[in-house]
This record gives sequence, structure tokens and C-alpha cells, in this order.
Amino acid sequence: MNAQIAQDKPLQGLKVLDITHMLAGPYCTWMLGLMGADVIKVERPGEGDFARAIAPFRDDESLYFMSVNRNKRSITLNLKTEEGKQILRDLIAQSDILVENNRAGVMDRLGLGYQDARAINPRLIYASISGYGQTGPYRHKPAFDVIAQAVSGMMSITGQEGGPPARVGVSIGDIASGLFAAVAVLAAVEGRHKSGEGAFVDVSMMDCQLALMENAVSRYLNAGEVPVRLGSRHPLIAPFQSFNTADQPIAICVDTEPQWHRFCHALGVEALLDDPRFADGPMRAARHAELEPLLNAVFSQGRRDDFLERLEAADVPCSPINSIPEVTQDPQVAHRQVLVEVPEASGIKYVGAPFHYNGGPVSGETAPPALGAHNEEILAELGLDSVRIAELRRIGVL
Amino acid sequence: MNAQIAQDKPLQGLKVLDITHMLAGPYCTWMLGLMGADVIKVERPGEGDFARAIAPFRDDESLYFMSVNRNKRSITLNLKTEEGKQILRDLIAQSDILVENNRAGVMDRLGLGYQDARAINPRLIYASISGYGQTGPYRHKPAFDVIAQAVSGMMSITGQEGGPPARVGVSIGDIASGLFAAVAVLAAVEGRHKSGEGAFVDVSMMDCQLALMENAVSRYLNAGEVPVRLGSRHPLIAPFQSFNTADQPIAICVDTEPQWHRFCHALGVEALLDDPRFADGPMRAARHAELEPLLNAVFSQGRRDDFLERLEAADVPCSPINSIPEVTQDPQVAHRQVLVEVPEASGIKYVGAPFHYNGGPVSGETAPPALGAHNEEILAELGLDSVRIAELRRIGVL
Repeated sequence: MNAQIAQDKPLQGLKVLDITHMLAGPYCTWMLGLMGADVIKVERPGEGDFARAIAPFRDDESLYFMSVNRNKRSITLNLKTEEGKQILRDLIAQSDILVENNRAGVMDRLGLGYQDARAINPRLIYASISGYGQTGPYRHKPAFDVIAQAVSGMMSITGQEGGPPARVGVSIGDIASGLFAAVAVLAAVEGRHKSGEGAFVDVSMMDCQLALMENAVSRYLNAGEVPVRLGSRHPLIAPFQSFNTADQPIAICVDTEPQWHRFCHALGVEALLDDPRFADGPMRAARHAELEPLLNAVFSQGRRDDFLERLEAADVPCSPINSIPEVTQDPQVAHRQVLVEVPEASGIKYVGAPFHYNGGPVSGETAPPALGAHNEEILAELGLDSVRIAELRRIGVL
Repeated sequence: MNAQIAQDKPLQGLKVLDITHMLAGPYCTWMLGLMGADVIKVERPGEGDFARAIAPFRDDESLYFMSVNRNKRSITLNLKTEEGKQILRDLIAQSDILVENNRAGVMDRLGLGYQDARAINPRLIYASISGYGQTGPYRHKPAFDVIAQAVSGMMSITGQEGGPPARVGVSIGDIASGLFAAVAVLAAVEGRHKSGEGAFVDVSMMDCQLALMENAVSRYLNAGEVPVRLGSRHPLIAPFQSFNTADQPIAICVDTEPQWHRFCHALGVEALLDDPRFADGPMRAARHAELEPLLNAVFSQGRRDDFLERLEAADVPCSPINSIPEVTQDPQVAHRQVLVEVPEASGIKYVGAPFHYNGGPVSGETAPPALGAHNEEILAELGLDSVRIAELRRIGVL
């Protein structure tokens, strides 16, 4: 074991069975593999993960698939055959974690639900991610990202004031559930050190959106405020939004009294400091509609980069509103080594770990696997010989 | 220990020092406390966490603060005094995890940075969350949510097509970094079982936004596509968006060929199935601009609830675009017990855990603490007697 790799691979030694597709499940197991877990992705023979069919492609591989399936090995298994199920049971017997994001009930009907898996391996941590969770009146309804964003209220608070609801520009309905699943699974790994027992983690995409909206929901339930779309504005803090300048827009944030003082001085609007309407944070937030035109008048008179310079010198939080091409050229992004190449797929660049671990970027990501690329390797680890593997392939199990 | 509580509290026994404020840090430690960790929140005497000043209030407590500071104890400590630092060092000596989201360099200047803490407790897992990370040219810049959303490109891909950039309706700049920090910290807890050593986790809010945008960044870097704002539409899948009907809008998602067939039959537009322009998923995505008006014409002729009924019967993912009041009344949300009350703060409702753990909702959340509510209790655990505690209060350490 390479000591350098081990230092940023704290999950080395954990075996993860990944019966996931599209995004929520794969995102969860991407994180686990990134941190060193041995992730075995189980895919349908022939087509594999639905995401493999999503454009655009690079060298015939889907970029959508590749991005969240690094650091995994792929085995094909037809789970509708008894032989396929038996291989999965054998894999379950030696795994620490299983993550699946099929619709609620699918794994049970295959005889591979949590109770089945627990009978094989009581130490298994089994995580199911679904649109609405494994229980309740909606449990059998299908849900994809836009459904989770719509049904949860997330779209109702994203977009321009008075305009139509907008979807968050990434699939946050999927991604959030993948992240919450990773948190719950890793907590269960810790619990297992004490209890010796596995756990069942049942993650609902709809509930995860509510957890992201904890503030909006609390304001409605406990203060009677109905959260709505606010463009770039924060509901509780002002000024905390984007402003148009004479050229490009600028984002700024003034959250504390010292920041407010520095902000007004930097913009040359000291008179606002004496204006009783804006005397403290809650007042500025309540009167944002009076404050905003005053600041619009200031920002419209100058260029973005000049404002950035003045506000940065005054230590006021501010930034350009970068496009994706712009952020990929950003010197901070380069310094942090956020954009990574994996050795087996040279020339292709991905977003890597969003944190440094023990003083440097998390390294050693491996390329996303071709469909069934590790069939022989994984089956050999289970003790199957090449004759048996050829037979399984012939009868359509792999 | 209550067996019922223990079953859904896998982090019981872990001690967490929380030197956080506002949102990113508190969100991370909310998750840890929810799962059973003993979280001690260290706050400035007098004012405490900046979030305590953010409106709206309920019984003089900030709802913003309360929502993400459940399941914690609060101690006030003036970290600019030697006595305050010594108490923090004593707490570090017996903690498993420290989470802080001060600006990069602040903890080092206090003599309480990772190297200082490690000298006291080499098993400590120390997580720093900041706008841009602890390294690089932007490391000292201040950043709050809207800055992270702007600088990362997230705002550039959220909002209506051709309209201005919109902020994601929740503080995803903060929340995502709190979730990634929780993942990295819990992975480090597992790593410590093998190495016996702690770790330093350096989380960048900007990098976390990039990790949410993994698909958009990959499409730009590897296929030359410049991701832009698309309203409610998915960049790669169609139809996957909201449509206006004769009354309320509806969200739908058609991702697979069987879904496309069921969708066309349910809407009575079987002719589309024979239209060569829409023969498969990539073609429908590429020609969404031709497909969308055809579907608009259909949806404009009926009522949302009728479409929901037909599409649900056909097993096509669909939903209303709920407001926050609507989602809080949803029967699935009620069934999942996502909205929780904590006993000490009756009448106040929060969003609880977005996952069930071992068959039921995560229970036993405790009320957010008043500022310094646990000063005596925590200091007594460190062996300080009431005379010394009174002295510390007198000289302004607490």
C-alpha cells in the first residue's frame, strides 16, 4: 500500500456494492470511492447504467456517466436469473455497504431487499435512495431530479421575483440525496464499530430537498412568511445579491455592521450610515426595496472590475458572476487542483474532491469503468474459475 | 443509554467541538449531532453566533439560528483571553472532531489552528470550512453564500433562458460545503480506526459548488458545450421540465424509451412516437426546441390535476410545482415525519433528518441552546468548580 495514497484514502478496506444508476446513487458512491472504498458497480448486461446512453459522448463513453463513476469497478449481472442473484448474494456476504437507488420495492421483489441482505450479512449497511422514501403513500411513484425539485417547493423559491419557477441549474434533487446518503452511511459505519450490527438507511429525495430548505420551511411554519422567488437576493440579509454595473454584474454581500461601514465608505455613500432606515441588519433586510435603488444608482455609474477592486480593498465580500468557462480558468481553482485528469483517460478533465485532505488534494482517482470491465477480476475474487465465468457469460448472466 | 435512541444515534460517544457561525459550519455539525454526537458549540460571550441576530425571531430567538443548531450544547468562551484559549485546549484534548468556519488564518492567529490542536490531540479530526479553502491566492478573501454561488458559475446556470442569473433559492453555497465537510469528517473517523491518527479536512465553498456542477464542468471541458440558464429544463434530457397548463404548471420527466411510449399514449400524442425527429433520447434532447411547442399545445388544453392523474396512471414521473405552504401540507411529508417538534420548544416545527434510519425517522432532536446555556455543565465536566467558573465569568472569559 502506497503511504501517500493511504493518507488521503481513509475508507480503504471498505467494500461497497453499488446497484445504482443515473445520478443520486452514483454520486454517493463516487464520494465513497474517492475516499478509498472498493466500489463494485453492478450493471445490467448489455446496456448497463441508463446514464451510459446520455449524450454528449467522448470516445463513445457518456460524459454524464463518466463524471460520477470514477473510482469504481464494473461487473455485469442479470439479477433476474438465479445465478445472477447468487453472485450478488456472494458479494453481499463480503461487503460492508450496499447502495441502491431503484424504485422502492424493486430490490424486495428480486429477493435482494434489506431483510434478505441482512439474513446473509447482518453487518451490512444497506442504503436505499428513492424519490419519496421506502414508506408512505408516494413510495411507488417514480421521481427524477426535476420532480424532486418541483414537488418539494425548491423550484417555487428559485428564479426571478414575479417570474416563473426555475430549476436549480444542477440536479440538486439527485445530488443532495447522494450526499445525505453518504453522511448517513458513514455514520452507520461508525455505529457498527460499537454495535457490531449493520443498518438500513432509507433516503428520500423529496425529504432531502426539504432539509436543504430548512430555513424557508421554518420561516413559513414558525413565522408565517411564505418564501418566494427573489432573483439573486437573500430573504433575510441585505444587501446580499447581484447588482448590474455599467458593464458586467457583480455579487456582493454585507452581513455584519463592520462590513456595512466598510461597504458604504468604499462606495462613497457614507450618508447611508446615518440613514435611520438602514440602522441595523434586520432594518436593512426589511427595507431592501428602499435600499436597492440607491445602490443600483451607485453601481450603474462604474465598471465591475473597479468596484471589485474597491470592495476587495475594503474587505467586503464580492465577486464576478462567472460563467462555467470563466470559473475553469480561475487561478484559485488552478491552485486548489480541483480539476483533475485520471491516468487511464488522458485529456479528459473532471471536477475532483471539493476538499483537501491532510494538506493536499485528494489524489489517485481512477477512470470510470467500461461496462463489465472487471467481470473476470471480481468473479475470480469470489473463487470462480474461467470455465465457470465463460459458462455464466454464455447463459446470459453476465 | 436508551436502546431506542441508540439505534438511530450511530455517532453516540463522539465529541465534537463546534467553532462555527452562520450556516456552513453549523449545518455540518447539525448532521453530526442529529446522528448522536455530543456537539459543544463555542460562541463569543455577549453576542454568540452572528446568526443569533438574524430575523425573524420567535420568543426572541432567531429562527435562522435555531434551525441548524439543534442537538448542540452552547458554551461562551472569549478566545482572545489566555484563560479562554486554555479551556478550548482542554476541550480539544478530549474531543474527536473540531469543525470551524472562520476565515482562513483566524484560528492559526489565535494559536488554535490545526498544528496547534494536533500537538494537543493527535487523534483530533479538524475540519476548516472557508470560502476558498486554506490555500491559494483567494484564501484570505471573505465569502458568503451568494459569493460562492456567483464566483463558481452556479448562478450563471440558474434562472430563465436569456434572463438574469438567479441565486439558488436556498444557501446552497453554505449548505453544500457543510455536507461535504460531514462526509469528509466521517470518512476520517473511519480512517482513524485504522491509522490511530486524526486528519485535517480543508473544505472550500467554491470547490464544493464545482463538485455540484460536475456535469456542467465536464461538458464544457470535454465537449466544448457552454452551460447556460435553461429555466426548468434539463440540459441533456427532454422532455424534462415544467409546462404551463390551463391552470397550474406541471413538472414532468421522460427519461427512458418505455417512459416516452407511456407518456405519448397518456397524452394522446401517439403520432410523436413515429416522428423520426424524436426517435430516441439524444434526439429528443437535441430537438427539444421543436418538441416543446408541440407539448405546450397539448398541456395548454387541460387542467394540471387531470394531467397528473393521467400521467400517474401511466407511471410517468410528474408532480405539481408546490409552494412551501403546499409541501408542508403534503401527505407524504406527514407520513415520513419530516417536520419535527423538539420537546423543549413546543409549537416550533423544524425540518428533521431527510432519511429514516433502521426503519423509522431519526428521533430525539434536542432544542437549540440559549447562548452559554451549558457553561456550568461543560466546565464542570472539565473539572472546574463553581468558584473558578464565577471567576471566569467575572473577568470576561465566559
